[in-house]
Amino acid sequence: MSVRCAIVGPTGYTSQYLLELLLRHPEADTTYLASHREELPDVRELFPQFWGRLDDEVAICQPIDPRKMAESADVAFLCLPHKAAMSYAPQLLEAGLKVIDLSADYRFSDAALYERVYQTPHEDIAHLPQAVYGLPELFRDKLLPGAGAGADARLIANPGCYPTAAALAIAPLLSHSLVKHDRILINAASGVTGAGKKVADHLHFAEQNESYLAYGKIGSHRHQPEIEQTLSRVAGHGVPVLFVPHLLPIDRGILETIYLEPMDEDVTEEDLFEAYEDAYRDEPFVRIREQLPNVKHVRDTNFCDVTVRLAGGNVVVFSAIDNMIKGASGQAIQNMNLICDLEETAGLL
Amino acid sequence: MSVRCAIVGPTGYTSQYLLELLLRHPEADTTYLASHREELPDVRELFPQFWGRLDDEVAICQPIDPRKMAESADVAFLCLPHKAAMSYAPQLLEAGLKVIDLSADYRFSDAALYERVYQTPHEDIAHLPQAVYGLPELFRDKLLPGAGAGADARLIANPGCYPTAAALAIAPLLSHSLVKHDRILINAASGVTGAGKKVADHLHFAEQNESYLAYGKIGSHRHQPEIEQTLSRVAGHGVPVLFVPHLLPIDRGILETIYLEPMDEDVTEEDLFEAYEDAYRDEPFVRIREQLPNVKHVRDTNFCDVTVRLAGGNVVVFSAIDNMIKGASGQAIQNMNLICDLEETAGLL
Amino acid sequence: MSVRCAIVGPTGYTSQYLLELLLRHPEADTTYLASHREELPDVRELFPQFWGRLDDEVAICQPIDPRKMAESADVAFLCLPHKAAMSYAPQLLEAGLKVIDLSADYRFSDAALYERVYQTPHEDIAHLPQAVYGLPELFRDKLLPGAGAGADARLIANPGCYPTAAALAIAPLLSHSLVKHDRILINAASGVTGAGKKVADHLHFAEQNESYLAYGKIGSHRHQPEIEQTLSRVAGHGVPVLFVPHLLPIDRGILETIYLEPMDEDVTEEDLFEAYEDAYRDEPFVRIREQLPNVKHVRDTNFCDVTVRLAGGNVVVFSAIDNMIKGASGQAIQNMNLICDLEETAGLL
Amino acid sequence: MSVRCAIVGPTGYTSQYLLELLLRHPEADTTYLASHREELPDVRELFPQFWGRLDDEVAICQPIDPRKMAESADVAFLCLPHKAAMSYAPQLLEAGLKVIDLSADYRFSDAALYERVYQTPHEDIAHLPQAVYGLPELFRDKLLPGAGAGADARLIANPGCYPTAAALAIAPLLSHSLVKHDRILINAASGVTGAGKKVADHLHFAEQNESYLAYGKIGSHRHQPEIEQTLSRVAGHGVPVLFVPHLLPIDRGILETIYLEPMDEDVTEEDLFEAYEDAYRDEPFVRIREQLPNVKHVRDTNFCDVTVRLAGGNVVVFSAIDNMIKGASGQAIQNMNLICDLEETAGLL
Repeated sequence: MSVRCAIVGPTGYTSQYLLELLLRHPEADTTYLASHREELPDVRELFPQFWGRLDDEVAICQPIDPRKMAESADVAFLCLPHKAAMSYAPQLLEAGLKVIDLSADYRFSDAALYERVYQTPHEDIAHLPQAVYGLPELFRDKLLPGAGAGADARLIANPGCYPTAAALAIAPLLSHSLVKHDRILINAASGVTGAGKKVADHLHFAEQNESYLAYGKIGSHRHQPEIEQTLSRVAGHGVPVLFVPHLLPIDRGILETIYLEPMDEDVTEEDLFEAYEDAYRDEPFVRIREQLPNVKHVRDTNFCDVTVRLAGGNVVVFSAIDNMIKGASGQAIQNMNLICDLEETAGLL
Repeated sequence: MSVRCAIVGPTGYTSQYLLELLLRHPEADTTYLASHREELPDVRELFPQFWGRLDDEVAICQPIDPRKMAESADVAFLCLPHKAAMSYAPQLLEAGLKVIDLSADYRFSDAALYERVYQTPHEDIAHLPQAVYGLPELFRDKLLPGAGAGADARLIANPGCYPTAAALAIAPLLSHSLVKHDRILINAASGVTGAGKKVADHLHFAEQNESYLAYGKIGSHRHQPEIEQTLSRVAGHGVPVLFVPHLLPIDRGILETIYLEPMDEDVTEEDLFEAYEDAYRDEPFVRIREQLPNVKHVRDTNFCDVTVRLAGGNVVVFSAIDNMIKGASGQAIQNMNLICDLEETAGLL
Repeated sequence: MSVRCAIVGPTGYTSQYLLELLLRHPEADTTYLASHREELPDVRELFPQFWGRLDDEVAICQPIDPRKMAESADVAFLCLPHKAAMSYAPQLLEAGLKVIDLSADYRFSDAALYERVYQTPHEDIAHLPQAVYGLPELFRDKLLPGAGAGADARLIANPGCYPTAAALAIAPLLSHSLVKHDRILINAASGVTGAGKKVADHLHFAEQNESYLAYGKIGSHRHQPEIEQTLSRVAGHGVPVLFVPHLLPIDRGILETIYLEPMDEDVTEEDLFEAYEDAYRDEPFVRIREQLPNVKHVRDTNFCDVTVRLAGGNVVVFSAIDNMIKGASGQAIQNMNLICDLEETAGLL
Repeated sequence: MSVRCAIVGPTGYTSQYLLELLLRHPEADTTYLASHREELPDVRELFPQFWGRLDDEVAICQPIDPRKMAESADVAFLCLPHKAAMSYAPQLLEAGLKVIDLSADYRFSDAALYERVYQTPHEDIAHLPQAVYGLPELFRDKLLPGAGAGADARLIANPGCYPTAAALAIAPLLSHSLVKHDRILINAASGVTGAGKKVADHLHFAEQNESYLAYGKIGSHRHQPEIEQTLSRVAGHGVPVLFVPHLLPIDRGILETIYLEPMDEDVTEEDLFEAYEDAYRDEPFVRIREQLPNVKHVRDTNFCDVTVRLAGGNVVVFSAIDNMIKGASGQAIQNMNLICDLEETAGLL
């Protein structure tokens, strides 16, 4: 029997790709698209890709009615801006739905940190303790049904795109004590879908095309503390990072070039590769290879490609994902597969 | 002595490239940037390209004050939306400035046609008779000082981008009676700067990138009657065309692929090339070549590259320009050179 | 039970996308990749996308051994240059395989025409009569098992990319006698994958990027007679076309803008849409819509998006496909589905 | 009187842009294009941009005849691969020409270092001592005629593209003792023209488009020791760097994001900006601004845009140039202006 899926907020790029992946998924059905817009949109008007693939009854959005959603769906994906997500999640959980939130609202376990980073008080502190940070390669045990001592995961905080690529690249080196934890530099570059679908002067084609630049207040990107939270959990102590994002003139893809210091002079490149092998040998979605990764080679896949070099006394890690897939919707599906007891890779290979 | 230039409305792409060309021009100085915005912009904030190349006194815009402009400038370029242009032109002319209008306001000699096409009454009918359509290769005699019987040209209607590429490509074949005039099909494609700097959903990088499509109401583009007006003048009778525009995922460039019927079976490809040679032999900015033109090879130049083929009983003409240069700002400079008695190619080769 | 698939010549773009689609197909297994290269390649080296998705035994190519292939596969897809394809097809057929040829070798029923267009004698005239031109929307009856009076289709000539978009766009208007057949102009534009994976000066990124141009000898593209063959079959008499290809600076996608003359003055836009509706009402892969199609909206799909306009006495049809999917590999899968008695849409929606 | 210029090796991208800049230069004439190819090329065939702008006598290349070149030119620009440059330079110098070499052959003062880095013995050690590294902002005194105690500069080693952006960004912080010199990390990204015009599998449009990756052997790029040589000269002691290059899917532009450690905790962002102001206040081609630089805003200019941030205990510098202009041909012109006693900015603003 298929898992029945609802998407709340189906008008942005993450929901476009989520819908695309769900259509390819052999054991999932999209049953309910829910919008908070007054005039309920037809997603086929927004994404003409879907004409001929979605019936009227699904494509034309319905209001966000938790009870009705719970009747026709098992899982609700929240593709909403932060703040909006936590205003709907409680009702959806109460109505019996499993919730996978693609916003940032449940990513921090510390409400005060959330408030500081997102400049708004957290409005659903009650559910924070049960939210699971859905990065399966690092925290799978909290996602698998019946695996933990406690209750099954029903509220998943789907990780940010940059944090996914960073955490997967850095965690094994920390856990294997191969690098120092006090000067980690993350030079990141993302395709334009990462900036969202809303128009803005700087996102005009003629501005972004043939363009490349860093953006934002350096050292203050919202994903920096998210990366730090994950690495701190892995290391067992605080791990500060410096995160510097750039915008690439492409549709999709993130490449992070990460600079670290080896723990001591004895560390070899072989040691580094072994740490990755040890961590990811059985992971279906992490590819450790000698070749330098290219965003083009992970496009439209749920893979994270990682390689590492020891050069001039520095450890340099390269990590590539599709920001829309492993960085958002693909990982959301992977999380759904896990909490719904499907094959983890279903619909993703 | 240099020609002193003012630009009215210096915040769009045409004014960016106009400013760029004026900076390279050996005999022109930009002296006055005039904006109708309440908060007077610094063009270097809008186009960081210009830091280090424009002094404060020029870069920081001034109000549109015709008297003051006339004191510091000889020529005013209007880079305004249609309708706004004709609201300023009369005062600027009266103040003694020569006016080169890059909008559509003075392109049609028939005010009723203007009203029908631009959906607004013409508000400066008085000046229409003296406006010269600034396509030098076809109408140079009206632009040269002292050349005509009447007064020197002081109000220039700078042609549209698509009409420039179309008219230069088609006119010689009509004037040499080599093609029929009743089924002319213009398949046109333009880079995104042609759509202007204002943001819009469909101009978002992630929508235009890796994209290609026709746009608008087919057969109703505003440039269609402008092309027809020029060709009718050349032919001496009405010449209807069908104009179908497409949007290319590039910054700059127009290529038009134009389908015509030869006048009779005796027309040879040689005849067609001869007509072009005859028309453009001495033109510095039209290049007639065997090779199929590429928008990349006219980029940042004032050239119009044209070639022609006879194939399957059809005449196919290919015409390429940089929509920002020969299609707008370069042609405006060419017109300035002519009416100010400079070398026609000054600053453009 | 799944259909077992072999790919012969798996190093180009068509085979990359074919492999991608087969991996997503619920009822097909890729079992044999066959290369004629001395040093047998690993397709994962060529297309790093496939690491983690293909096992060694499949990914590392094997020699083209028809007997061995027939043991492990039911269908062989030929992704070879023309001429090479017909040198292998006979042995593969004889060994019992069904053959879907993505080259041009079996597309013309007339060997003399083939020789003229491809400048090489046809070397497998014996099989030409049984080859079926695999454009299901127009010739499905010849593809369905047991449907015809004769034998089941075992040799499929997969149509060219441009001809697919053209034929689907034009055929209904001809069959409904709504347009004249003697001046059909096809203005086509394709992404760069259409030019193949082999390097060439003009395919260098820095040449194609920000570029747009027509190419080749106008009126002599090899797809022109292929389009004419299909349209002539539909019309029951010769239908000449003029085909003018352009190269777009994008990876994938074809848009054709087609100019025709209405049969008479009474033809309305409604008539034109009705003809399409009539022809394609039940087709899963042709989308007739009011909206002008965009190559971006068919990307990575097997759809052909078509719309039509009546403008200035001309019929203008717009037809968009992904050149790699409906224009090559997707259509090959669709053909496989048909001749192997699977659901026609399996793996494609 | 104009400076007469020869270009040796005019078939690559650097010579294309050099020619473009020389055409715009008010006091330079291109008089001699010299090729070592058997069949002497017409540069207009290679770069159709130049039709109509270059006469036959210049555009059609001549053999590399030093005596003849010296008759018609004052300066020779070498746009040759390394090793080829040093095989011609001695004869050109001897014939009386000033030589500006855009290859790497005279960039290292240490012939042994050259041999190690370029894997070939240096064949013109005799001229190494007189070669001047042409980075005017740091070494102008060696370029100005009559400025030094010794002879005027007649052999200029034009810096590499990456080293130009790196050295200008880092030098002031070292010379003002604001950063430590022992862990400098340079994350660099370049447009595809930087890879040269020669075709290669990975430079195919369909491979580079929508792509982004690091390349080469990390820590072994040839520009790394060139950067180290310059910074060591500035600092007065060895300065090791780690240089990590990436390839951007754009035509032109380099952005380097450089990570350094502040000398101590007292260093403020203000200090950093002051160092730049102090170093570059009067430089026409270095723009120090608060805004993060974008390769698009230096395109087709000779500017190097630099800004700096202090974030999380790190100094992060951003430096952008057009790899073809300030990174190659523009800087070559700047050097020509200096050694030929023209205004340094002539033809470049």
